[in-house]
Amino acid sequence: MNLHPLDHALQLAADASNPDLFHGNTSPAYDNMVGPYGGISAASLAQAIWQHPRRLGEPLTLTVNFASGTAAGPYQISATPVRTTRSTQHWVLALTQLDTSGQEQVVLTATAMTALRRSTWEMNDTPMPDVAVPQALTRAELRNAMQWLNRYDMRFVAGAIPAQWDGGGTGSLTQLWVRDEPLRPLDFASLTAMSDVFYPRLWLRRATRVPVGTVSMTIYFHASNEQLHSTGTGYLLGQARAQVFRHGFFDQTAQVWSESGALLVTSHQLVYFKE
Amino acid sequence: MNLHPLDHALQLAADASNPDLFHGNTSPAYDNMVGPYGGISAASLAQAIWQHPRRLGEPLTLTVNFASGTAAGPYQISATPVRTTRSTQHWVLALTQLDTSGQEQVVLTATAMTALRRSTWEMNDTPMPDVAVPQALTRAELRNAMQWLNRYDMRFVAGAIPAQWDGGGTGSLTQLWVRDEPLRPLDFASLTAMSDVFYPRLWLRRATRVPVGTVSMTIYFHASNEQLHSTGTGYLLGQARAQVFRHGFFDQTAQVWSESGALLVTSHQLVYFKE
Repeated sequence: MNLHPLDHALQLAADASNPDLFHGNTSPAYDNMVGPYGGISAASLAQAIWQHPRRLGEPLTLTVNFASGTAAGPYQISATPVRTTRSTQHWVLALTQLDTSGQEQVVLTATAMTALRRSTWEMNDTPMPDVAVPQALTRAELRNAMQWLNRYDMRFVAGAIPAQWDGGGTGSLTQLWVRDEPLRPLDFASLTAMSDVFYPRLWLRRATRVPVGTVSMTIYFHASNEQLHSTGTGYLLGQARAQVFRHGFFDQTAQVWSESGALLVTSHQLVYFKE
Repeated sequence: MNLHPLDHALQLAADASNPDLFHGNTSPAYDNMVGPYGGISAASLAQAIWQHPRRLGEPLTLTVNFASGTAAGPYQISATPVRTTRSTQHWVLALTQLDTSGQEQVVLTATAMTALRRSTWEMNDTPMPDVAVPQALTRAELRNAMQWLNRYDMRFVAGAIPAQWDGGGTGSLTQLWVRDEPLRPLDFASLTAMSDVFYPRLWLRRATRVPVGTVSMTIYFHASNEQLHSTGTGYLLGQARAQVFRHGFFDQTAQVWSESGALLVTSHQLVYFKE
């Protein structure tokens, strides 16, 4: 049986002697312009937590800092539960690689929380925007640009990648439907990866393509594993906008809803840009 | 000369033998209902980075995870620059305390980035809301509630703490002017502390006071030290709202502007609530 490209990319081998250590390999199927798509790196950290024998509960928060590019090839992830309470667990993570001289280098730093979810009062205070259904929209033709784009079916509602790089941008809002290609039932790993699916807000705001790179990303998970399961292979609606651009960095705030309108994820990132 | 309460609270002694280690003490002046105000804990981590002999540049991001309550008394902060590039530096931090049996316990985990800021294209894409000037508003009378509230002059524009806990809340937006009391020129430490100044959105949304506690907070700094310096002792305008409440947690997104309208900070947190 062939593994889904996401499951292939996220294969992690437990270390023989250290329960907090996992060994993986980058997957060309999720390559970005330079190195892997940031979402797949974040997902590999979520996956390490998911596989950890001491995990308590489900993903609640994940912050990933991109310290350097990930080189093609093997990497290791350390995922350590540093504090466990009755209902929450705090994690410290790092993704490291050996450099050409055999020195271990920090590629990503991260922290995360997992938690036992329980039923409480709830309020979806950011309703899903009222947009056209995915079936009424055309799939974006991005597939010759970068490998990772082949892994997603994206249908832009608003704020598609500028057709002309003419400096004429006016806003930073993008809304798009997205799902795995080929189809794959939603879980925390794929939701983590899709939380980074938005192209750089600067490109839209200025209609100018300058070098960029995410330096930090935080994901808050607002859904239970059961809710993800019931979402199945449906489309998710993603929305992202920037708040401020200054001194070579800008932020992005994002929301991801299930097709039925449940807000699954709120996310934020800070992105470097070169001018 | 008397130290400002903030400078007193943030006094950190460098460890004699480990350059990544700092020793501090909690300050009753910033006590919350149980333990210290979260903003002062975050500021103590920013302060450790600021004092570190190997620091490159200025604060850019800070993520703090609240693993357990901080006990009154001594604590230590480890702040390690794990990767330094030409213009950015990645930090891994922890605040620990000894428990009653002398075991070192993780109280906070954190990551941060510092960076050399440079002039680039810029865009303040989230203009400051058009609100009444602070001088036209009344200072909130919160001072008998918790110690840390005595440290701030807060003037609510919208979304003040409910006068009646009658379950009648309709929205989660708060806007307020805030500055240190007594006055203190703005710097990264005080800005970090003020990024957490918003009372729990759940209390506003439901007009119901249930136990809450921040479990994770991320701050993106969009201002240079020079900009903070020019802000001086002026008021800052803070704005916060929630996006979703579910399974015992809710999020808050926040912005903090200088009185002249520069967006200094965008921030996000996830908060536990008990129902």
